[in-house]
Amino acid sequence: MPITLTTDFGLEDSFVGIMKGVILSIVPDVQIIDISHSIEPQNVAHGAWVLQSALPYFPDKSIHVAVVDPRVGGTRRAIAVQTGKQFFVGPDNGILTPAITGKSKIVELTKEKYFLQPVSASFHGRDIFASVAGWLAKGTQLASLGKAIKDPVLLDLPQPGIVKNTLVGEIIHADHFGNLTSNISRSMLYSFIRNPADLVLQIGRIKIQGLSENYSSCKAGENGLLINSWDKLEIFCRDGNANKKIRAELGKTIKIIRKQ
Amino acid sequence: MPITLTTDFGLEDSFVGIMKGVILSIVPDVQIIDISHSIEPQNVAHGAWVLQSALPYFPDKSIHVAVVDPRVGGTRRAIAVQTGKQFFVGPDNGILTPAITGKSKIVELTKEKYFLQPVSASFHGRDIFASVAGWLAKGTQLASLGKAIKDPVLLDLPQPGIVKNTLVGEIIHADHFGNLTSNISRSMLYSFIRNPADLVLQIGRIKIQGLSENYSSCKAGENGLLINSWDKLEIFCRDGNANKKIRAELGKTIKIIRKQ
Amino acid sequence: MPITLTTDFGLEDSFVGIMKGVILSIVPDVQIIDISHSIEPQNVAHGAWVLQSALPYFPDKSIHVAVVDPRVGGTRRAIAVQTGKQFFVGPDNGILTPAITGKSKIVELTKEKYFLQPVSASFHGRDIFASVAGWLAKGTQLASLGKAIKDPVLLDLPQPGIVKNTLVGEIIHADHFGNLTSNISRSMLYSFIRNPADLVLQIGRIKIQGLSENYSSCKAGENGLLINSWDKLEIFCRDGNANKKIRAELGKTIKIIRKQ
Repeated sequence: MPITLTTDFGLEDSFVGIMKGVILSIVPDVQIIDISHSIEPQNVAHGAWVLQSALPYFPDKSIHVAVVDPRVGGTRRAIAVQTGKQFFVGPDNGILTPAITGKSKIVELTKEKYFLQPVSASFHGRDIFASVAGWLAKGTQLASLGKAIKDPVLLDLPQPGIVKNTLVGEIIHADHFGNLTSNISRSMLYSFIRNPADLVLQIGRIKIQGLSENYSSCKAGENGLLINSWDKLEIFCRDGNANKKIRAELGKTIKIIRKQ
Repeated sequence: MPITLTTDFGLEDSFVGIMKGVILSIVPDVQIIDISHSIEPQNVAHGAWVLQSALPYFPDKSIHVAVVDPRVGGTRRAIAVQTGKQFFVGPDNGILTPAITGKSKIVELTKEKYFLQPVSASFHGRDIFASVAGWLAKGTQLASLGKAIKDPVLLDLPQPGIVKNTLVGEIIHADHFGNLTSNISRSMLYSFIRNPADLVLQIGRIKIQGLSENYSSCKAGENGLLINSWDKLEIFCRDGNANKKIRAELGKTIKIIRKQ
Repeated sequence: MPITLTTDFGLEDSFVGIMKGVILSIVPDVQIIDISHSIEPQNVAHGAWVLQSALPYFPDKSIHVAVVDPRVGGTRRAIAVQTGKQFFVGPDNGILTPAITGKSKIVELTKEKYFLQPVSASFHGRDIFASVAGWLAKGTQLASLGKAIKDPVLLDLPQPGIVKNTLVGEIIHADHFGNLTSNISRSMLYSFIRNPADLVLQIGRIKIQGLSENYSSCKAGENGLLINSWDKLEIFCRDGNANKKIRAELGKTIKIIRKQ
């Protein structure tokens, strides 16, 4: 079953290839799949959202390595997690938040025999996380990797809320096409508004009304809204790039009101 | 045998990793090879040219997934194609044009049991094309995937022509080095001009004379022409970047005349 | 065991996917790992440094293909190398320098039956290097690929030196985070200076004092120095991008003095 990698390392350097070399040196036959190496540098929450978008599509026994690690080499712990039939490895800084439930088994990675030696101060993706993922894929038991813990760092991922008849959310991802994903899920939206034609979204000075079935329902160059493949409300520009028009950094506020 | 992916999805997002997760959930042992995810967004013809450049180099039984899909979620059909011993999966918008001959078997993808459910409005790369490719790799017969069709959408890919003693073509690809590939093939060029030293190419206000054997035949910083690895006429700049100098968007006209 | 690829081809085009197709057509089951395709275009020394960073992390019997090849199609030779239990394939222009020792076995690639035919003038990565790597992975003996040579081109990779009580080195890599790697190794640094707190680095007009344990030891926005995962002295900016602040092209001089 595959090992996946989600990092902010980019693909220009040898970082990702080296992690794969480490894994294949331990377990030669495993498939290694890149989810993304373009997490906004050191933005742990962004890494958590992108990891969450991919998890439902991987088979049981997948091992997901996620490394956005601004405090590498400091005192933050390293952890491995089993949730249901999937495994996760990464720094204990909240990036694994989407993978952790009340039933997860979590260990702090303390058994140095599963690390590369010496462990560097700046590349635990190689020395700890890739190495541990390789040993997990080879059949090492989670409990052998270190001591069980109950208090992983969990991110308070921003949740939408209703303030004075307004559903307030934020932008959590801008994709290659310039489409802007918000943290407002389909179910949240429909519990707020019954008729999606009545929806008015405001972002900065821009207003967009109504929910499209798909990208083709808008006119070329027009902004539109749809429920995207993450099952979240998305701002798009038909045959254009919404992000270039709107310039929404991650975290930008969006407001949904019901049309009067 | 491998499954290949050609899309305009970029590598920043989780789109491509998710497609691979879907495939491996169906058929765990398949190799998945990226051809390119940097097709000009929503430029179906560009996707067709890039796909064409790669096809001769893959083994029999390869399954090629190509997704540039500006009308996803609308009424365009989804298709799978068998041509000789290779398979193709993608939207029926012309991107598979280079793969389709008079002898191809083509089916419209209608059997929903081979799709992920529910099918989203914006990511058929995941819900239909990756999923169907996985089932093909697992051994599902093409005919089982839907109903045979005879009228696939075929692109009228721009072909060079001779107008008043001038061979007129256009730029179809700009590569990482800034080399500009035209749609003029080696055989076309040589049927137009016997002695390549007599060739004069005009693009915008720039003229380039003669055909080089290789990049080293020009002086540093000089523009040159050669027949490239796609077997097409290419504009390059020795030790430089022709595209930065010439700024040729895809589709830009080039003219070849015989030197007087 | 894996075949790795290190090139300046970028990932936008079909070049890399095509090399993989060529390899899988010869040897269907091999793992192919990208080390980097973002070597500075035509910068052979940069390719050599990046290749060197990755080699220690790959298993025995790996086959490393490295192609930065500004003189493709000219008279430079093509070579394959065996050093210890690893194999290397590339142009004979010095890119394989980090892989070559006095004990390496080196052959000039002359046996055309291991090439794709016809060999193009511009893409030996496909026609020669990927193809030969495939045959090596399939079990072809190194000696069968051509004639033994003893005079490979070796780069004079820039080495630091001591000039008037100053340790002078240069920048050899800028990574995705803007961290700048120098050619000054840990052992070199410590043979020059006993107490790292006394170290003062000068690059352009910028001075940085002292050596950090890890990125977290500096204040946000502050420049710092550490020994990085290549075991080399690195300039970083905590929670920032040193390269954007310092704008150091590859080859830029750095000076280390002992604080008075």
